[in-house]
Amino acid sequence: MRIVLDAMGSDHHPGPDVEGAVSAAREWGDEIILVGREELIKAELAKHNTAGLSISIIHAPEVIEMHEHTNAVKQKKDSSIRVGMRMVKSGAADAFVSAGNTAAVLAAAIFDLGRVRGVRRPALATIYPVAPSPVLLLDNGATADCKPEYLMQFARMGVAYAQNVWGIANPRLGLVSNGEEADKGNMLVRDTFVLLSESDLNFVGNVEPKEITKGVADVVLTDGFTGNVIIKTTEAIASFLLRHLKRELTDSLGDKIGLVLMVPGLVAMLPGLLLMLPSLRGVARRLDYAEYGGALLMGVDGIVIVGHGRSNAKAVRNAIRQARLAVGGGVLDVVRASVGRQGGGENDE
Amino acid sequence: MRIVLDAMGSDHHPGPDVEGAVSAAREWGDEIILVGREELIKAELAKHNTAGLSISIIHAPEVIEMHEHTNAVKQKKDSSIRVGMRMVKSGAADAFVSAGNTAAVLAAAIFDLGRVRGVRRPALATIYPVAPSPVLLLDNGATADCKPEYLMQFARMGVAYAQNVWGIANPRLGLVSNGEEADKGNMLVRDTFVLLSESDLNFVGNVEPKEITKGVADVVLTDGFTGNVIIKTTEAIASFLLRHLKRELTDSLGDKIGLVLMVPGLVAMLPGLLLMLPSLRGVARRLDYAEYGGALLMGVDGIVIVGHGRSNAKAVRNAIRQARLAVGGGVLDVVRASVGRQGGGENDE
Repeated sequence: MRIVLDAMGSDHHPGPDVEGAVSAAREWGDEIILVGREELIKAELAKHNTAGLSISIIHAPEVIEMHEHTNAVKQKKDSSIRVGMRMVKSGAADAFVSAGNTAAVLAAAIFDLGRVRGVRRPALATIYPVAPSPVLLLDNGATADCKPEYLMQFARMGVAYAQNVWGIANPRLGLVSNGEEADKGNMLVRDTFVLLSESDLNFVGNVEPKEITKGVADVVLTDGFTGNVIIKTTEAIASFLLRHLKRELTDSLGDKIGLVLMVPGLVAMLPGLLLMLPSLRGVARRLDYAEYGGALLMGVDGIVIVGHGRSNAKAVRNAIRQARLAVGGGVLDVVRASVGRQGGGENDE
Repeated sequence: MRIVLDAMGSDHHPGPDVEGAVSAAREWGDEIILVGREELIKAELAKHNTAGLSISIIHAPEVIEMHEHTNAVKQKKDSSIRVGMRMVKSGAADAFVSAGNTAAVLAAAIFDLGRVRGVRRPALATIYPVAPSPVLLLDNGATADCKPEYLMQFARMGVAYAQNVWGIANPRLGLVSNGEEADKGNMLVRDTFVLLSESDLNFVGNVEPKEITKGVADVVLTDGFTGNVIIKTTEAIASFLLRHLKRELTDSLGDKIGLVLMVPGLVAMLPGLLLMLPSLRGVARRLDYAEYGGALLMGVDGIVIVGHGRSNAKAVRNAIRQARLAVGGGVLDVVRASVGRQGGGENDE
């Protein structure tokens, strides 16, 4: 498998990107092609032991920065994102992975790869971290304004992923709403509910956030605006609560230390408090973006993984892992064969 | 102040409703009118010491159950919700409070009270629990499909609340989006962004969930679908994390007890672990619905507080407190004078 990685992707590129690539190449033995400024990548690679690994460099002189508007995509033809995307288009690589500017990666994917024939809009599919078993949530931000027909295609793409990558024969599909009943939701949700009910999909009905965290669906369907708000609310609340708990812990530890100085026998209580920290860490790990690595951009004609700008080396490695899983599962072929055909004919603009 | 309370509201009515009313009457000395099945309310009241309290009963023979569709509102003219709403309409009470079927309360409010002249759609305004200072989020579910003009009116209603109830001279207003930049969001958000930027409101721009939890805005504006999903995601994540932490705590406590039996000196560690429980409870309290009590239905021509179906007595008491604050702040007069007028002329249907 050949995976091209945007070495200029993460906020602190190319360090975390190159380190993640080396780690992935060592772990899975894939061919990794680093795209970006050759001299910077070489200097970074020199810090690692790459003996026996299949890592090469493709020079791309331009970089699309995080703050840049998507019109930079058209102008910077020789940016790492555009060069990487064209390698997937030409078949020189099986997948492109970037932790760079998400809007730019999306725009470049549409521009250079195009959509799968028949697919009307792309969707970002993300593993939702707060559930007892894996849940694929889509769309997480590629298409903010949706129509019921777009959501139907997202549904088929998500189901194809769960079948081919996770091996779930008949994935349970839920539709995000503000109530479980068929008449709940906004117009988009109510209209989509009808289409899903009439389809051959294993539609389990409307799901509220509580049900998502209980694992009632394998694939959770929503428009890109709502999906993004759900993911970001999840991150914000988890981060708020863990910060708050840590502060309370530190405060009560502080109080106890004062007490301990007066009553030496209480020294033995300190280990009990410290025991809590691993519990907090266990919960924090569930929500650590780096564990999942990246989101799969579905509906474009190639495998593209979009990572978080804040990615560290572990996140980059796991984003490469997501690319491997999508390529290995043949997700793109399934989308081409089923969703594109069902979508019926031409792309609309 | 006279507040009429739906005694048939909560899931376990009339117990929690009556107990909450007694507690509120004792605490604030207001006149509380309980509306519902007289014999049931009487039996419940007999369990409490109501000496010196101003609590009366208005008999309403019908009850709109939680599972009932909103068309029950038209049919059940003598339900506690309809009778209570008419008391506000006639001026016999200053506010109506119900922990009953939310959709039914909304429908009855529109039906019996009508909208404030010029207001196009109602909005549910809720105190968002996860922030360093009070944040009013609206709409939390009254109007799932919004237009920019509706959101502009919600903005003015929310600002009126923050000024008159919280005493904030120039409340900071944020618009929920999937990115901070002006071009982020769905069509509704992008169009509303333009209107807000051109308005005289203290618009601080788009806010993502992370910013909401950091307290960058006093009033947070969104459509009723997204607002409801944000509130419910917040509850779901908090509940998931607290459950998870408690289980990890119990497990490590269990492990320690085994150890303790072998090494008696470690008995002293147990209090340290138990110390954690108050921290967890502190965080849980922040997120306890009962602390806030209920949401204010804004835009209808009367003060209506909608509580959670799962309300206990404390939640009912705090919902009554919300009603007192809204009446005391003269919120309805402000909405009538400013928002209704700005909205311009007739309601549309």
